[in-house]
Amino acid sequence: MHLFLRKLFAEFLGTFWLVFGGCGSALISAGFPQLGIGFTGVSLAFGLTVLTGAYAFGPVSGGHFNPAVSLGLATAGRFSWKELGPYWLVQLLGATAAAFVLLKICEGNIDFSLANGFAANGYDEHSPNGYALQSAFLVEVVLTAFFLLVILGATESRAAAGFAPIAIGLALTLIHLVDIPVTNASVNPARSTSQALFVGGWALQQLWLFWAAPLLGGLLGGLIHRFALADKD
Amino acid sequence: MHLFLRKLFAEFLGTFWLVFGGCGSALISAGFPQLGIGFTGVSLAFGLTVLTGAYAFGPVSGGHFNPAVSLGLATAGRFSWKELGPYWLVQLLGATAAAFVLLKICEGNIDFSLANGFAANGYDEHSPNGYALQSAFLVEVVLTAFFLLVILGATESRAAAGFAPIAIGLALTLIHLVDIPVTNASVNPARSTSQALFVGGWALQQLWLFWAAPLLGGLLGGLIHRFALADKD
Amino acid sequence: MHLFLRKLFAEFLGTFWLVFGGCGSALISAGFPQLGIGFTGVSLAFGLTVLTGAYAFGPVSGGHFNPAVSLGLATAGRFSWKELGPYWLVQLLGATAAAFVLLKICEGNIDFSLANGFAANGYDEHSPNGYALQSAFLVEVVLTAFFLLVILGATESRAAAGFAPIAIGLALTLIHLVDIPVTNASVNPARSTSQALFVGGWALQQLWLFWAAPLLGGLLGGLIHRFALADKD
Amino acid sequence: MHLFLRKLFAEFLGTFWLVFGGCGSALISAGFPQLGIGFTGVSLAFGLTVLTGAYAFGPVSGGHFNPAVSLGLATAGRFSWKELGPYWLVQLLGATAAAFVLLKICEGNIDFSLANGFAANGYDEHSPNGYALQSAFLVEVVLTAFFLLVILGATESRAAAGFAPIAIGLALTLIHLVDIPVTNASVNPARSTSQALFVGGWALQQLWLFWAAPLLGGLLGGLIHRFALADKD
Repeated sequence: MHLFLRKLFAEFLGTFWLVFGGCGSALISAGFPQLGIGFTGVSLAFGLTVLTGAYAFGPVSGGHFNPAVSLGLATAGRFSWKELGPYWLVQLLGATAAAFVLLKICEGNIDFSLANGFAANGYDEHSPNGYALQSAFLVEVVLTAFFLLVILGATESRAAAGFAPIAIGLALTLIHLVDIPVTNASVNPARSTSQALFVGGWALQQLWLFWAAPLLGGLLGGLIHRFALADKD
Repeated sequence: MHLFLRKLFAEFLGTFWLVFGGCGSALISAGFPQLGIGFTGVSLAFGLTVLTGAYAFGPVSGGHFNPAVSLGLATAGRFSWKELGPYWLVQLLGATAAAFVLLKICEGNIDFSLANGFAANGYDEHSPNGYALQSAFLVEVVLTAFFLLVILGATESRAAAGFAPIAIGLALTLIHLVDIPVTNASVNPARSTSQALFVGGWALQQLWLFWAAPLLGGLLGGLIHRFALADKD
Repeated sequence: MHLFLRKLFAEFLGTFWLVFGGCGSALISAGFPQLGIGFTGVSLAFGLTVLTGAYAFGPVSGGHFNPAVSLGLATAGRFSWKELGPYWLVQLLGATAAAFVLLKICEGNIDFSLANGFAANGYDEHSPNGYALQSAFLVEVVLTAFFLLVILGATESRAAAGFAPIAIGLALTLIHLVDIPVTNASVNPARSTSQALFVGGWALQQLWLFWAAPLLGGLLGGLIHRFALADKD
Repeated sequence: MHLFLRKLFAEFLGTFWLVFGGCGSALISAGFPQLGIGFTGVSLAFGLTVLTGAYAFGPVSGGHFNPAVSLGLATAGRFSWKELGPYWLVQLLGATAAAFVLLKICEGNIDFSLANGFAANGYDEHSPNGYALQSAFLVEVVLTAFFLLVILGATESRAAAGFAPIAIGLALTLIHLVDIPVTNASVNPARSTSQALFVGGWALQQLWLFWAAPLLGGLLGGLIHRFALADKD
């Protein structure tokens, strides 16, 4: 397969895996009576999609799986600006395909209803614990910025080879351990969009924040790394 | 010991360990009052059987511990087709031996009864949360396919040495974090068979799905990797 | 940027991340009804701040993020005594900045009140489970001393490269798994100070212990490693 | 310090850490109302004592921290028989010292009583979930044997350097995820002895099993590895 198409396909698969595993664990397993995995299990699941996806697909595509990550890497001078558009497109397609397959699986359970919000992100009355817009925006910016700092630090040439997927995947676990009660945890516009498309209504109306805040955070992380931390300066 | 016998013995031990640790944690520890490990602990246990087994036995046998994994590796051109039969046989023997020892341990607890289903896999009324056959089939195919993509990606020659057991073991943890409420999580026909043999009845009647879906998923994962992602194409 | 300023900035960011992720998970996610992450999730979060921060910032600053760690490293002859003051200062600034941002996020939740203690450390009636001062002092000394032994052992020249952040981060997880019910878990004077400054009153009155015990532990760990375990003696 | 004394001191510290962190998490944090870490957290804690202790002390002493491990390593030809006695002695001393310090910490909590069993191991009416002697013996033998297989496999010359502490530590986590409801999980005579000495009575009467079964398991693991799996045969 043509090399660039292969990269796009790997990125499609990786983002599918992120949404299928992360949102899937939230929809299917979080609230199971007594034995459910709760937010700890969901946080672990999101992190492990990236840890495992980075080993599976990272050598092909770089393993972004997230428009904010691609933006931050481009900002830091570590990803080509002209590949950003195609990457965003396949990330959205992969995430949405995963949401569609999850929907088909969930429909085989009599208690499932999209009206319960799928795994969409939200703020104010759609925040899992009622956090206001300002809190949601702030936490998403800070967490995405540090996510990029971890990604950029762990993949520098001076870093020990092979450990980056562990650092990056577990950073996403950490992010979810903090953020689920605030916004249901995004830091990833593709993940948020994939859910909002099926939920519609309020989820689409609040979707702007889950593009604006992660992209701003990704930009900040990229700039901070480039000008204050990077290997050569 | 003759080299091929040593490989078969390692594969026997590894599949024993997978069923003993994974199903054992589910049977013994998941539902303990207040302090039980729940589905998060069981997911961790299944993953750690493979993570640790791959370090212990992987250098000898390759560390499949799963007929669907052996099939996927053969499909991708990374395992000999003529060793597939013997591998499947010892995987089944190892899994069944573990189930037998677990049964002996569980019988030392007055509340234990095989009528509660052991750790068998099921769908419809035997799904832990009542998921239909279609959901069960779909989730097992998708998860096994991605399991193979992680395995094949993490063990390629271009991958950093030594990390594969972490990626593969934690992929199995992730799979369980998603899948336990749907089918009790298989992605492994040997694991499913080992439990169904002792439960009988409905578990044997539903066993076909836990061969068909994981094998189809393993095949798909092997094909996708070979033709779209592999190192040389 | 000037090299030493860059080190201080990395240390500021890393300590910010430790408090933001660790205390943030405790404040936002620990007690969420049914699905909350509990002390296991908080322990994991604290450990992952250091695991990920060490990959992100460690190559620049060494990745201490903790005055007791800097002291122990200096004691062991592995950190410059004259850099100790500046490191302590930026660690305090980073921790306090994180506490301030967390406060802003938490204020977007109608149920939040600083009167509930933020994530401050305490003993006697301010211990989560009513442990006396002596217990608090003892557990903080022992845990910080072993934290330093892990840090010093995992970063020696004879250690395999790249694994130190895993060992050190997961040591902090382990420490929290033991210590949260006793003192809410400190082993880090900067983390304790950042919370006490906003809580005031009892938290400031008890703050002395969360300087004295971790620093004593750090000193002991440094001495034990230097004179009984270090590579060259 | 004389090299062999240094090894014994490292082994003392590592076994102290195993009991302090593992049993400490069980005594202090497992049953905290609502937020307690349960058996999942205790399992994680035990595993992380070994993971972190192996990085901290392994390069000095080999990082056994367990008489059954020392026996298994000697059986497999990977540890000197004449060092076995001194290793067992310091392992017992380290474990007992940790139990003593834990007791002092726990006595600072008004609800603590040794009559609740400390973190001792037991069977029949002293099994956490009422498992019979036969179950206890069987599970301890099987789990210790596989613990040794993981240790021996992960530390062979053909294994990738640096990963052994991860494999071995997480194997101990897995063992606890299965075994806590049966015997409170031993696989380590030093850990069991350290608790029984303070509990006395039934704990001392049942202590024989937590020497016999782990040592038998360690022996079996050593023999299986040596004759069926080892690198050269």
